[in-house]
Amino acid sequence: MRILYHLPLSPYARKVRLALNEKRIPFELRVERVWERRDEFMDMNPAGTVPVLAEENGLVLADSYAICEYLDEAYPELPLLGRTLAERAEVRRLVSWFDGKFAREVTANLYYEKQMKRLMGRGNPDAAALRAGYANLKPHLDYLGWLAETRLWLAGNFLSLADLTAAAHLSALDYIGDIDWTVNDAAKDWYARVKSRPGFRPLLADRVSGVNPPPHYADLDF
Amino acid sequence: MRILYHLPLSPYARKVRLALNEKRIPFELRVERVWERRDEFMDMNPAGTVPVLAEENGLVLADSYAICEYLDEAYPELPLLGRTLAERAEVRRLVSWFDGKFAREVTANLYYEKQMKRLMGRGNPDAAALRAGYANLKPHLDYLGWLAETRLWLAGNFLSLADLTAAAHLSALDYIGDIDWTVNDAAKDWYARVKSRPGFRPLLADRVSGVNPPPHYADLDF
Repeated sequence: MRILYHLPLSPYARKVRLALNEKRIPFELRVERVWERRDEFMDMNPAGTVPVLAEENGLVLADSYAICEYLDEAYPELPLLGRTLAERAEVRRLVSWFDGKFAREVTANLYYEKQMKRLMGRGNPDAAALRAGYANLKPHLDYLGWLAETRLWLAGNFLSLADLTAAAHLSALDYIGDIDWTVNDAAKDWYARVKSRPGFRPLLADRVSGVNPPPHYADLDF
Repeated sequence: MRILYHLPLSPYARKVRLALNEKRIPFELRVERVWERRDEFMDMNPAGTVPVLAEENGLVLADSYAICEYLDEAYPELPLLGRTLAERAEVRRLVSWFDGKFAREVTANLYYEKQMKRLMGRGNPDAAALRAGYANLKPHLDYLGWLAETRLWLAGNFLSLADLTAAAHLSALDYIGDIDWTVNDAAKDWYARVKSRPGFRPLLADRVSGVNPPPHYADLDF
């Protein structure tokens, strides 16, 4: 069986899980405590990060960008990157927006400070980082809401990797109680639609030790 | 004519310039002072970053990941991402390595602190960031040297976007005098080969006001 090495709240691993689920590609999950820098894992990915996907034919893929592009090339049914050149450019622009800009401005300041630092024994969250993360979250939710209001899905009239990437980051932050969904109704409605997809259920069932998600986390009608 | 909005030392814009040059796709360069947040530019790319590519047919592409993937799809002659699924996964893993890990650990600590802060009027470089950047550079040059010793090019036996991405970051750092090429001979030999390609020349001719590159910067036999 295909194996995905992951951490339950890693936004990048969540993105790949959502992509695999949408494409109905079966896989087995294996938790990788990346901070232990296990030799066999470092051989598969010298960057020491999840996700890593090990295919049954022996091909090992590291990095969520490489994995997601691979999935659309190797399993082209149910494409997640769009069909035309313009669609694909817009999907990728938004994937980069959430995995790059949003990740730096929001995810790193909240998820890394509150969750990863604890797991890695690197001390308490930095108060200035948390403040910056919360302050940056609002304009990002507004941009997401604006996209969701002007289009059926974030990148156009089709569900794409842009939606899965945004939902991966937001769901990790929602688990640790950091999303105030009253900020933007359109963003909330969009998230409710993504969250209701069958491929999202396994993520909502995940629990990590020491942190309980808020009551609305797994509620489809939050 | 196709227009590429850029900053002369932006590693992400340099990557796209190298890709366009390798593919022999003609384009016109336009400097974009991103910190001015010009309305027409923000409409093209709400992230406010370079590179942005405006095609003659009206298609506008933002973000170097979206642009480079587009270039290989729209202009498939002289592919830069590899041919097989395994080759493409390795190229993309390394693109992500340099644009993600290397950028966070090295480029952001040196190029951003020394060059971008000055341009954006955000004060002096942070000494701790500079120290971290120099400390992180050495293991990265060693990893690059190891790849270059075990393969013809970084991702395998063909020149790829992995080489162009690594060279884009290194050339920007080399311009500001931050690369000590005596650290790793294999990395230096690889860089000399990439630097000798005709598509690299325009980058070596770039000058930015207030910063002169070291004498070896444009020397092909450094």
